[in-house]
Amino acid sequence: MDRDPILLTPGPLTTTLRTKLAMLRDWGSWDSDFIAVTAKVRQSLLKVIHGEDSHVVVPLQGSGTFSVEAAVATVVPRDGHVLVADNGAYCKRAARLTNLMGRRCTVLPFDESAPVSAEAVEAKLVEDSSISHVVLIHCETGAGVLNPLAEVAEVCARRGVGLIVDAMSSFGALPIDARELRFDALVAASGKCLEGVPGMGFVFLRKAIVESCAGRSQSLAMDLHDQHVYMEKTGQWRFTPPTHVVVALAEAIDQFEAEGGQPARLARYTDNYRTLIDGMGRMGFIPFLEPAIQAPIIVTFHAPGDPCYEFRAFYEAAKKHGFILYPGKLTQMETFRVGCIGAIGRNEMEQAVHAVELALQDMGIASGEPAI
Amino acid sequence: MDRDPILLTPGPLTTTLRTKLAMLRDWGSWDSDFIAVTAKVRQSLLKVIHGEDSHVVVPLQGSGTFSVEAAVATVVPRDGHVLVADNGAYCKRAARLTNLMGRRCTVLPFDESAPVSAEAVEAKLVEDSSISHVVLIHCETGAGVLNPLAEVAEVCARRGVGLIVDAMSSFGALPIDARELRFDALVAASGKCLEGVPGMGFVFLRKAIVESCAGRSQSLAMDLHDQHVYMEKTGQWRFTPPTHVVVALAEAIDQFEAEGGQPARLARYTDNYRTLIDGMGRMGFIPFLEPAIQAPIIVTFHAPGDPCYEFRAFYEAAKKHGFILYPGKLTQMETFRVGCIGAIGRNEMEQAVHAVELALQDMGIASGEPAI
Repeated sequence: MDRDPILLTPGPLTTTLRTKLAMLRDWGSWDSDFIAVTAKVRQSLLKVIHGEDSHVVVPLQGSGTFSVEAAVATVVPRDGHVLVADNGAYCKRAARLTNLMGRRCTVLPFDESAPVSAEAVEAKLVEDSSISHVVLIHCETGAGVLNPLAEVAEVCARRGVGLIVDAMSSFGALPIDARELRFDALVAASGKCLEGVPGMGFVFLRKAIVESCAGRSQSLAMDLHDQHVYMEKTGQWRFTPPTHVVVALAEAIDQFEAEGGQPARLARYTDNYRTLIDGMGRMGFIPFLEPAIQAPIIVTFHAPGDPCYEFRAFYEAAKKHGFILYPGKLTQMETFRVGCIGAIGRNEMEQAVHAVELALQDMGIASGEPAI
Repeated sequence: MDRDPILLTPGPLTTTLRTKLAMLRDWGSWDSDFIAVTAKVRQSLLKVIHGEDSHVVVPLQGSGTFSVEAAVATVVPRDGHVLVADNGAYCKRAARLTNLMGRRCTVLPFDESAPVSAEAVEAKLVEDSSISHVVLIHCETGAGVLNPLAEVAEVCARRGVGLIVDAMSSFGALPIDARELRFDALVAASGKCLEGVPGMGFVFLRKAIVESCAGRSQSLAMDLHDQHVYMEKTGQWRFTPPTHVVVALAEAIDQFEAEGGQPARLARYTDNYRTLIDGMGRMGFIPFLEPAIQAPIIVTFHAPGDPCYEFRAFYEAAKKHGFILYPGKLTQMETFRVGCIGAIGRNEMEQAVHAVELALQDMGIASGEPAI
């Protein structure tokens, strides 16, 4: 029996054994012990963004996308108008779910190799004063671009427009300070940089707007206002919570805090990223993005130009050597992705680079250099 | 440190250590190993209802209520008209979510101490031919009533009306045979009688209607048609699956099959139920429902009439002796509930009865007899 492979994927990711061990117990969802776990998780999450004064946090069952949909459903009035700043696959998904729910939606397209431009967002807001909300993906995992959250938040605040931030892949690793940035909703999930297991998301809602959100959602399950009111009153989730996922998150957050919180996590991921980039670079691999706009979360590499290369075989070869890679998500060119997040450090990244080297050897590929 | 208490709640419930141990591994959601787990779970679920020829099964992230909402959103056209046969809290929830989504909804009320009447459902269908779908809760956990699924299914089939069954609390324990019953959708979840952990639901959709469901859902996350099409094509979930919950369910299903499937599970739960009823009866407790309409899933008891009784204190006393009870959910009278499901047998039920006895003693209550 082989060792379990290490996941270099942007969630689910590799978690610590301690986090997983927390799941070896069954909890009554109505019980005071579990209510205390939920309360502690919510308090800790607010602390991560220094949002105790300005925001509430509402956990929600399901994957991160469920929480993104819930944020739009709950925050945007039915006659609202959403502007999605689009530089990748997750932006397109946000636009799709906004449209499906019957909210008016305008897409402002950017190149997937470049960050969103706050100036372009502002120009669009000036041009169309019916826009009530902007949706921004903080770190667009499609390519791995870091978008200018502070600049877009400043534009939205100045123009009196609501901001919904999908911080799925950045929360816990990149700095987000609710005392400095104004946003109506910010969305993340258990199985990303907090290094919990997947199965729940959470949405920070600005206190000043919470009351106005009543009755906006056409979905019962997705209604964050209803979930919030019920949770404040009873300490419980409205519907059966994924108890094991919640206690694993609580355990993961304990380790997050013990490590030194967001700055320490960013430092570790940045070190992972550099170890990866350096090692891959020695084999000729070239990252898709310029370093200046690359978040140290997930890296998109150009596929090798060698005619022997084929992603599926490369994936299987790397897996044979103990590492799970991730397919590319760009439409125009052949790429693959490698995550830098999870309960892994420099040792694992060095081993990962070595596994890629062995995988290339297995496939008879001399270099990672892309075709020009 | 005390032993973990045993959950006598209708989900989350007590699971085996083997089921929980399956969560001590991280899985890549895109990986072939995880795709194989999902495929095996889906095949096994279809086998439980003998639905291989007639139905597909679509898993969904979130609690069971998410899957109920998704079933209504996916199956009922936007101009459809839903009749909810209402004899309890979960029926009311189904009506609420149907209304919220903008589907026309008529509620046919029944007493919460009696099963739904198939004759009354038929009379309503005759009276209002605009009704396109009936929603029935198989076992209404509010009180614990078993509703006449076969009779209602027969009426719906004969009158050409779609049937959506919430089989959350019955699936795996009570017989449901898709070769004999016609239903458009049937909903259940991981953390109930299959004895997995909570965090995902699943919906059986009748093959004959699947194609017609395209584009009906106003929710992206809840769109079971979209989830189905994507899963058939790729073997993957559309959005990040709760990987640990899925592998725990796979492990739980293995044990379910090894135990002897649904008949064996029903036999064990029936034995649990009898042990509970007999023991509680000796203390003077009286069940709310007539035995003939009581499912051996969860039992509602009248609260003791003794003036020293108060549910919260009773709950805490029983917990001190190792058992987690469940509050009542009836509007008109004081009750509490005890689940008979989960990875427990006669020993645990005898111990539970004994714990209730000790709890009464702790509270200075001489008898479980209700006030008349």
